[in-house]
Amino acid sequence: MNLILLFSEDFISPQRVVLRDRRKAHVETIHRAQAGDSLRVGRLNGLMGTGQVVRLDDQELELNVTFHEEPPAPLALTLLLALPRPKMLKRILQTVSAMGVKDIHLINSYRVDKSFWGSPLLQTEKLQEQLILGLEQARDTMMPTVHQHQRFKPFVEDELPQITEGTQAFVAHPGVTHTCPSAIDQEMTLAIGPEGGFIPYEIDKLAECGFLPINLGERILRVETAVPVLLSRLTPLQPVKRT
Amino acid sequence: MNLILLFSEDFISPQRVVLRDRRKAHVETIHRAQAGDSLRVGRLNGLMGTGQVVRLDDQELELNVTFHEEPPAPLALTLLLALPRPKMLKRILQTVSAMGVKDIHLINSYRVDKSFWGSPLLQTEKLQEQLILGLEQARDTMMPTVHQHQRFKPFVEDELPQITEGTQAFVAHPGVTHTCPSAIDQEMTLAIGPEGGFIPYEIDKLAECGFLPINLGERILRVETAVPVLLSRLTPLQPVKRT
Repeated sequence: MNLILLFSEDFISPQRVVLRDRRKAHVETIHRAQAGDSLRVGRLNGLMGTGQVVRLDDQELELNVTFHEEPPAPLALTLLLALPRPKMLKRILQTVSAMGVKDIHLINSYRVDKSFWGSPLLQTEKLQEQLILGLEQARDTMMPTVHQHQRFKPFVEDELPQITEGTQAFVAHPGVTHTCPSAIDQEMTLAIGPEGGFIPYEIDKLAECGFLPINLGERILRVETAVPVLLSRLTPLQPVKRT
Repeated sequence: MNLILLFSEDFISPQRVVLRDRRKAHVETIHRAQAGDSLRVGRLNGLMGTGQVVRLDDQELELNVTFHEEPPAPLALTLLLALPRPKMLKRILQTVSAMGVKDIHLINSYRVDKSFWGSPLLQTEKLQEQLILGLEQARDTMMPTVHQHQRFKPFVEDELPQITEGTQAFVAHPGVTHTCPSAIDQEMTLAIGPEGGFIPYEIDKLAECGFLPINLGERILRVETAVPVLLSRLTPLQPVKRT
């Protein structure tokens, strides 16, 4: 937790928050903070700043907060991800949230196990738990949005054209495809299939929508690894602001 | 398992192997292979090729194997990794093995929990189990080597100069450092610290050895994510051979 993310219900006044949950426990046991110490905080979907410990007792952590810094820039990339198994989805949500993806579309595919769509993890609150872990890790405040599309064809035909409009669209597809380009300085849409990949029909449908199939070389990577690798290769690195 | 990795003890003749372990189970339940089917195989530290199913019964899978293809090129990068907690180490070993790293040095650091060095996972056989999963995933045959260095200072002073000789050396260090360069077409050494990072003393020692501190932008990533991200940014992508 490199940033304590604050929600409107934490505020008892514009400059004061009281925390009682795992954030308090973390500050106590990991940061080992004491009254007077300064912690990095951020307001959900707002600015980042500092929180000075006013009080830390058995029940509560009270912080005096000020906000002065913009969160890091989002990645200019919308992610389409064939729904992975729940355990893997958890980690991928944390990863893409930490890396700055703000629009995530979980989609169906022939090789997606139907049972995955019944996972309790797909409830908005559960998804946000994972996304929050990513924001806290990366020091970001802007909550990503997760969309769910349980039917491939209607999604691709009816909704996808609006999503890809004005973007360069890529679909990760191992084999003799285009080599993944690097540092594209433009809005992108990236589709990543399930373990085993999209089937040819799905690749064709995505190609009709303007998606270029790209590969990461000879090596076949697990989805969980392919996600950060593709995001890193495709997007330019934003330099750290010198303050 | 995108490749069945074969060991010398699997061979009953130069062109015949018999498998009884999890590889047989995988071929049976995931590939659902039958007599006559062709599977992708590779000989440990040797060529890749095909294995035709000769026999698949309750006990054994027998394959007729031929070898004709070089494994993918290794990454031109030696990795120094502050020993992570065992659960994370498992996944990182799979990831770096899949991505083609062949020399891995697990090193100590002030923020490495001493208990991690007692993990049974650090036995050669256990380490190789994880590395094999990465090779099978990526379709590679060349087993990486894992070195362990439980003392930071003697390692850096006495052994590191020979490791970095002739390479460009980088240490991942968030903050106001150099922005991570991309697609370096030269041998590299990359050092990645523990969660929380190397301490200033360690960064100084590495800098004395020629390591340039680099960052991945404003966002602080977990080690598990930083590893594939750094490998992707630093190394050029090898195009797929067109056959």
